[in-house]
Amino acid sequence: MSATASEFDLHTTARADGAGRYAVDLDGGWQVGGGLNGGYLLATVGSALREALPGKPDPLAISAHYLSASVAGPATVSVDVRREGGSTATAAVDLVQGDSTRIAALATCGDLARLDGGRRHVTATEPELPPREECVSSAMAPAELRAVAPLLDRFEMLFHPDQVGWVMGSPSRRGVLSAWFRLPDREPDPLALLLAVDALPPVTFDLGMPGWAPTLELTAHVRARPAPGWLKVRHQTRNLDGGLFEEDAEVWDSAGRLVAQSRQLALAPRG
Amino acid sequence: MSATASEFDLHTTARADGAGRYAVDLDGGWQVGGGLNGGYLLATVGSALREALPGKPDPLAISAHYLSASVAGPATVSVDVRREGGSTATAAVDLVQGDSTRIAALATCGDLARLDGGRRHVTATEPELPPREECVSSAMAPAELRAVAPLLDRFEMLFHPDQVGWVMGSPSRRGVLSAWFRLPDREPDPLALLLAVDALPPVTFDLGMPGWAPTLELTAHVRARPAPGWLKVRHQTRNLDGGLFEEDAEVWDSAGRLVAQSRQLALAPRG
Repeated sequence: MSATASEFDLHTTARADGAGRYAVDLDGGWQVGGGLNGGYLLATVGSALREALPGKPDPLAISAHYLSASVAGPATVSVDVRREGGSTATAAVDLVQGDSTRIAALATCGDLARLDGGRRHVTATEPELPPREECVSSAMAPAELRAVAPLLDRFEMLFHPDQVGWVMGSPSRRGVLSAWFRLPDREPDPLALLLAVDALPPVTFDLGMPGWAPTLELTAHVRARPAPGWLKVRHQTRNLDGGLFEEDAEVWDSAGRLVAQSRQLALAPRG
Repeated sequence: MSATASEFDLHTTARADGAGRYAVDLDGGWQVGGGLNGGYLLATVGSALREALPGKPDPLAISAHYLSASVAGPATVSVDVRREGGSTATAAVDLVQGDSTRIAALATCGDLARLDGGRRHVTATEPELPPREECVSSAMAPAELRAVAPLLDRFEMLFHPDQVGWVMGSPSRRGVLSAWFRLPDREPDPLALLLAVDALPPVTFDLGMPGWAPTLELTAHVRARPAPGWLKVRHQTRNLDGGLFEEDAEVWDSAGRLVAQSRQLALAPRG
């Protein structure tokens, strides 16, 4: 856990509020499109899980189904531990505002520091990103976009210059977005990885479909605690069909390790 | 729904047994390694969901966390509908035997026949499989293996001949397994796709790690109702690390459409 009082830590804090219940205060600074960012919400769920499962602070696999759009303000996270084993525990988690469930999730948590090293066989390839000074910062987004997407002020995101054609109406149409990513005031940890897997714009932007793409379901695997420094994030879709698309995200740390993988199913924008 | 009384249909039948409860009889014919096959169990959960959610027969996204190994015999599937919308519904589902929860799952279901066609952009590539007569049938597995894996008698599986070196102790070490797949007595449907995503041996076999690889979590997206005929299935891992690996599966139908995608997180075999 971070010792600093970073903005991200403050906005994802879960306070015990009865047995298996945690109070959180969702911050409007994470708004984008029709609701609060799904990665921010997932990190908030991860924060409550960390309180509920001592000794198992890391979400090895967390599956979230997004039932309704969250809004700024108080929310309750309820954690129902379904199985507690020696090295992992599985819990059902609900994020609720008023009468509305926003997210129903299942999470299997453990301690990444205790995982068996064992064999390593990685054929996944790190995103190829030019040096940060050659990338395109999200801070360059026009003021009218920043006004409806305050999310952009919460982190630093530097896009691959070959993958920002969609900003000017000429998307690459490959279905790939890559960026450098970091929180401005704190090093990455597993909770920040839950944010990172859903922080970039929908990959459909790169297919010339600039609309809102609501997530139905997102599952993230946190595979290692990230080294300090910038992260590299890649979003990709390979199957836009039937009004739905899958979006895969990979997050790589500064040591060149694949530290998180996620896949979501989202509604394709119209057009 | 199939009109035939196929073995798969009989073994996944869910009978209403009180409000939101379904009785199933798990069949020992699906045994492999330390328990019943995870895809068979997922299909059983899908069968109960189909009973519980009229008009929304298809599991668009189903996330299952495997809590304990299932055994042959009676089980109860409880379905708690968490959100019912016009086109999709989300339910929490438990598969329970005695006092033990075997699977806790969340599923978002709908009707694939009603999905908006819209734009199509598919860059995923179909598994390259030689003609079936040039592939290696699972029916050729030695008798001692078939004795502990009666699962192999439930379907037809024809492996790519370049990816069966592990049988003879010389795995390709690429982390890929591909096969033709079909049920012997019925055409594929979304429930059969839930089986297909976990039907092949663990992809770690192809990395020279022949042991048991228990699934912690598996999420499947069923993207289209499959055309009649043989399916092509590919399992792949790109990140074996820290004693865990992800296994991605794709299922393609006879019309060349990517009809299901899944990813699981599993414990790597020792060694």
